[in-house]
This record gives sequence, structure tokens and C-alpha cells, in this order.
Amino acid sequence: MTEAEVSAKSEAAITLPIPRSFPELDTPLALIEHPTLLRNIGRVAQAARTRGLAVRPHAKAHKSVDLARLQLEHGATGITVAKLSEAEALAAGGIDDLFVCYPLVERTRVERLIALSRRARISTIVESEPQARLLAEAATAAGVELDVTIDVDTGLGRVGVALGPPLEALVHLVERLDGLRLRGLSTHEGFVYGIADPALRRARLTESLSAFVLAGQALSLETISAGATPTIFESMEVSGLTEVRPGNYVFYDAIQVALGAASLEDCAFSVLATVVSVRSGSSAIIDAGSKALSADAGVHGLALLSGYGIVLGRPDVSVIGLSEEHGWLSLDPQGDGVQVGDQLRIIPNHACATVANFDRAYLWEGESVIQEIPISARGAFS
Amino acid sequence: MTEAEVSAKSEAAITLPIPRSFPELDTPLALIEHPTLLRNIGRVAQAARTRGLAVRPHAKAHKSVDLARLQLEHGATGITVAKLSEAEALAAGGIDDLFVCYPLVERTRVERLIALSRRARISTIVESEPQARLLAEAATAAGVELDVTIDVDTGLGRVGVALGPPLEALVHLVERLDGLRLRGLSTHEGFVYGIADPALRRARLTESLSAFVLAGQALSLETISAGATPTIFESMEVSGLTEVRPGNYVFYDAIQVALGAASLEDCAFSVLATVVSVRSGSSAIIDAGSKALSADAGVHGLALLSGYGIVLGRPDVSVIGLSEEHGWLSLDPQGDGVQVGDQLRIIPNHACATVANFDRAYLWEGESVIQEIPISARGAFS
Repeated sequence: MTEAEVSAKSEAAITLPIPRSFPELDTPLALIEHPTLLRNIGRVAQAARTRGLAVRPHAKAHKSVDLARLQLEHGATGITVAKLSEAEALAAGGIDDLFVCYPLVERTRVERLIALSRRARISTIVESEPQARLLAEAATAAGVELDVTIDVDTGLGRVGVALGPPLEALVHLVERLDGLRLRGLSTHEGFVYGIADPALRRARLTESLSAFVLAGQALSLETISAGATPTIFESMEVSGLTEVRPGNYVFYDAIQVALGAASLEDCAFSVLATVVSVRSGSSAIIDAGSKALSADAGVHGLALLSGYGIVLGRPDVSVIGLSEEHGWLSLDPQGDGVQVGDQLRIIPNHACATVANFDRAYLWEGESVIQEIPISARGAFS
Repeated sequence: MTEAEVSAKSEAAITLPIPRSFPELDTPLALIEHPTLLRNIGRVAQAARTRGLAVRPHAKAHKSVDLARLQLEHGATGITVAKLSEAEALAAGGIDDLFVCYPLVERTRVERLIALSRRARISTIVESEPQARLLAEAATAAGVELDVTIDVDTGLGRVGVALGPPLEALVHLVERLDGLRLRGLSTHEGFVYGIADPALRRARLTESLSAFVLAGQALSLETISAGATPTIFESMEVSGLTEVRPGNYVFYDAIQVALGAASLEDCAFSVLATVVSVRSGSSAIIDAGSKALSADAGVHGLALLSGYGIVLGRPDVSVIGLSEEHGWLSLDPQGDGVQVGDQLRIIPNHACATVANFDRAYLWEGESVIQEIPISARGAFS
């Protein structure tokens, strides 16, 4: 085990001795702890308010109209989504300010965006000249003006233009094109997930975002927007940023705990599973497999995880493998063991990938379920 | 690259030069090639018929009422499912002979099973004494008799009793309990996924299933049922087996290709994705990430895979990473490259885990979509 894992497991033992049990509900199911959710949303909202920053949370993390609305009630200025169909699902639920942070490259999809822009306030990203021209032509033909940011690659190497001449050329193009209104720059500094050392992560973040901010200021752009959960509070310290777009922070998960970006007590999302078979003192099977928990073992190079989640209150129990519908537990022979029928609460590796498997999650507090939360944009990929 | 991968990639280049494109459909989407699907179902049906074996395919692979019905039309005697909620979803679609191959351990779930058994022919597994007693008590209280098999662990180490005294004790218990009717023995020889060498895999399979069959015959049991796709045809050669329960064989996938259990031409399921960003001659991004393709890199110890699927007809293109909504392509600099807007067809690592992410799949042939297939039991975990 890594130090972060040891620390996470010790903490589980100390602060959360009793797994919550909901015998009336069939497992596996997705749970969201209400006080923790509110605290997570509130902390980011408060920190941003103090610094005069806008918050535009990323709904890919929860895919839920209810949680997006909660974020807006806490002062978010709008919602970010990865896919157009997520925007459509949230707009259908009444969310009216949506930033589609994904390069739309096909006319059919751009036309869907324009149709949506007649029902809600919509913006999107531009990251190449052909894509800018496609958006501009479709918008002009439809007689609308689309708000856009230019997406910048600040180190993840996924989408976005490079700083310097490529960015400047694209800014000048977009400013000239009819149908587009340039709102500013956006980036996702997701490279921070690949840096295990917190001090190095912070240094790389600050260096990278500072260059990004300078570019935006040199071009006199109004919005300079970034966001990644592991470094959300550090990014707010970068002078000149105007907006943050964290996603996972509503839930946190085993990846964030491994990175030291959250404690187990910050984790609002868990999967409740039932022990269905005990083979020996050292192994057992639960009814949550890869289709429920997700087989995601960390994106963007994270190498801190082992296994498939943290079993709350049970440092003696590890989820060491997943079949489709079975989770494989390893039991410390010195621990208390498990019984068939026991319910265990598991913080998944990646909450965003996990909640997206479920049709609904249960918002709970103490021993009671408060509300069923539809995962409104589940399955919304296109 | 392993030899299997090199072979898979060469084969892709030879037999499937042109990726099918469906410009009218928004990606990423799930495709099922109709002729290949029919051939896969037909081959297993024909081989089983020749040997007088029953086929009870596992619907976890497709979670679809339509495909279950197709399997029944090809002579399947019933359908296997992993979860009770899958059985409920298929029964609601008119599938009337369902084997819930999962240990039900809670009274609420057993009562759901009994309720379902009034609407369809239902059977399930028993793998421990307390679980047998729970099923028997609930069935007796409800005035029904439940068909059961006793599940045997033949090497996977997941669920099931061991051969020998544990099995004999459980058989004698179940035969004495009111409310249960013992149909026979069942196993899932999933350990074959962990054996890379085909000759060794076959030898281990034969040894293991032969012992399993002997146990069933010694106990004079009617049904002796096993099934795992990589060795489905080999298992049919094991004398005395009465039923096979393969799942993945309807689709096959990159795992089966890596195991040598299928060729790329056997793969009926693919994900169509669009290139959304090209960064250089060596890398690009598609609009299918872990939420669509699944991050499953092989269960039960398979170590033959690298990356997240096989790009059909493009041996020069590899899917080397997945964010939630982005797939990372690596491009061979000697290849043809890709353009923004290109559609690529990808055989996922694990088709069962992938199809379960989608609300629907498209059955197609040649250049036409024939039918939309609802993934009826998507999200059915409980």
C-alpha cells in the first residue's frame, strides 16, 4: 500500500466506524450523503465568492438536474457539460445556462446546439480553425450568435490550442467570424491528476495557469476559466482567473483521497453493496461489480490506487477485483470478517464514472433516505 | 504488442479495410452487425444441437429482450441472468424461462424472486446452507416450489461450493427441504479467462469439467450445466454435460480475440466514435471515453490486452487511454492519419460491460441500420 492508502484506511477506521445500512433498499445502489454534499458545494462556493470568482461546475460529475440546481442555488453562474446530450438533458430539466465544454465538429451536432440555444443560454468551445468556421457558418445560417471560449491546452495534451501563435491566430479568426461572440479562454488542467506529489502538483499548476491567465489578459478577454477538482482551491489563488469549473468536488472519491485532495469524510458518494458469499476467512463476494462500481482505476496517469474503492469503516476489507456483477473482497485475517447479508458502503475509485452507471441515486442523512435523485443525463454520450 | 495483438491487428487490415460510417447517427453509439450476430448464435446452437445439449445463454452479455428472443428462436431452452432485476426486465419483455444464476441472500430479494416465479418459469442457484434455508422458507411460506441448481466452484474461486463433502452435504440438505426442487448442478468455469495458453486452457477446462460432471452423475442429477465463452465449443466435448450457458459469444470482443477464442470477423458488437480533435500526426481524440467504451481491461486475470479496444480496419490507430468522455488515439506515423469528423468503429475490450452503458444499440447490415435494440435491462443491478 502507498502512504496515501495507508492514511486513507486509518482514517476510515477512526472517523467512520459504522457502515450505514439501508435494509429496505435492494443493493447495489448509489448513495449521496446530504450534509457532505452541501459542505462540498458550499466550500467551493464560499472560497470563490471571497475571491470574486465565478463558479461553473461540471455536471459530468453527477449528470443530475437536481444537483445542478443545488449548485446554482449556491451561487454557481451556470453549468458546464461535456456532451451536447448532457446539455439537452439538463436544459429539459430547467437548467438555463450551459457551457458545452467539448469540441463540436459535425454539422448535425452544431445544429442541435443551435436549436438548444433557442431554449437556454448556451456557450461552447472552439479549438481549431475548421471547427470555428463550422460553428460560425451554422450560427450565421440560423441567424443566431453563439458565445464561445477558445479552449487552451495547458498541459493535459487532450484538446485545446497551444498558447502563443496558435492561440493568437484562433482568437483573431473568431473575432472576425460572424455568428460567434468570443467570451474568453477556457482550459482543463487535468494533468494535475498525473502528479502524485502535492507540492510539485501545485507548482506545475501555478506555472501553467499563470501563463494561461497572462495570455487571456494580453488579449483583453473577459472570461478566463479553468478547473480541476484536485487543485480547485490552489487554482483560485492564481491571480487573474475569472471562473472555475470543478466537477468531482461535489462527491470526491478514492482517487481524490489518494491524491490528498480530499479526506474520506469529504466523500459524499458511495455505493451500498451486500455480501452474497463468504468463501473463507480471507475472501468474500459482494453484489457490486464493474457494471455498478466502474472498472475505472484512474485516468491521466494516476498510479496511486490499488483495488476498486474504499470500504468505509472497514480498513480490514479491500475490494481487490471486479467481475461484471461480483466484487471480490479480500479480508484481513486479523479483522472482524464479514457475514452473508452484510451491507458495506464503498467509496468508488471514480465517483463520476460510477454515478453514471445508475438510473438514480439516494440522497440520505443519518439513517434516512431523504430524496431519490434521478441521474437525468445517464447514458447521454452524444 | 503481444502476438495475439499483432495477429488481431494484421487481420483487421486484411479483412476489414473500410470502417462503416453512419453519418446520420450521432456518436458514440453501439452497433450490432446482424449477419455476424446470427452466425455467432447459430454456431453455438448448431454445435449444441448436434451433441444433444441444451443452451441457456447468459443475458448479462446483451441485456436485451430482442436478443434473448432471438436466442430462443434459435433453440435456446431458456435464458440465464446474473441479477434478479435483469430477470424482471426480461420477464416484462415476455421471456418466460429465466435462470437467476446468482446467490440471492436477502428475504426482500427472495420474495421478489417468488413474485416473479408466478409470472414466468424461474430457477436460481443455491450455494450455502443458510441461503438454501432462506429460499426454502420463503418458498414454503408462499406455497410455491422453486427450481434450483447447486452452484459449484470449479476453479474461479468466486461463488459456489467445492466438490466432495461440501457439495454432497448441500445436495442432501436441498433434497430434504420443502419448497425447493433440485434440478442439478451449475458452474461458471470463468477461470479460463486467466489462462493465456489455449492448450493449457483446454486441458484445465477438461479436467475441471470432467470432475464436475462426475459429481453430478454420482448424485443422479438431471441437469449438469456449465458455460464460458472462450471455451464454449471445448466444453461441449466434455461427456455428460447437459447444458451450456455462454454469454459473450453473441458479440465477442477484444478480450476474446486476445484469447484466440474469436477472430475480428466474429465480433458483432462495436462502438462507432468520431474524431473530434487531431493534435499532431501521432495523436488524436475521439468522442468515446470510459463512460461509453468502459474502462474494463479484462477480468479474471487476463493480461493480454493493451489499450481499450481495436479500431477496425485501422491497424495504424490504437486507443491508448480513456477520459470520461474522450478517447485518446495513438497514430502510427507511417499510417494514413485521421481527420476531424472521421468515424471509427471500435471493438471494445469487453462487449458485455460496454453494451450495458447504452440505452440502445443499432442492429445493422451493410450500410443500413435495420432495427433499434433497446438494452432493456441496462442499469438492472439489484
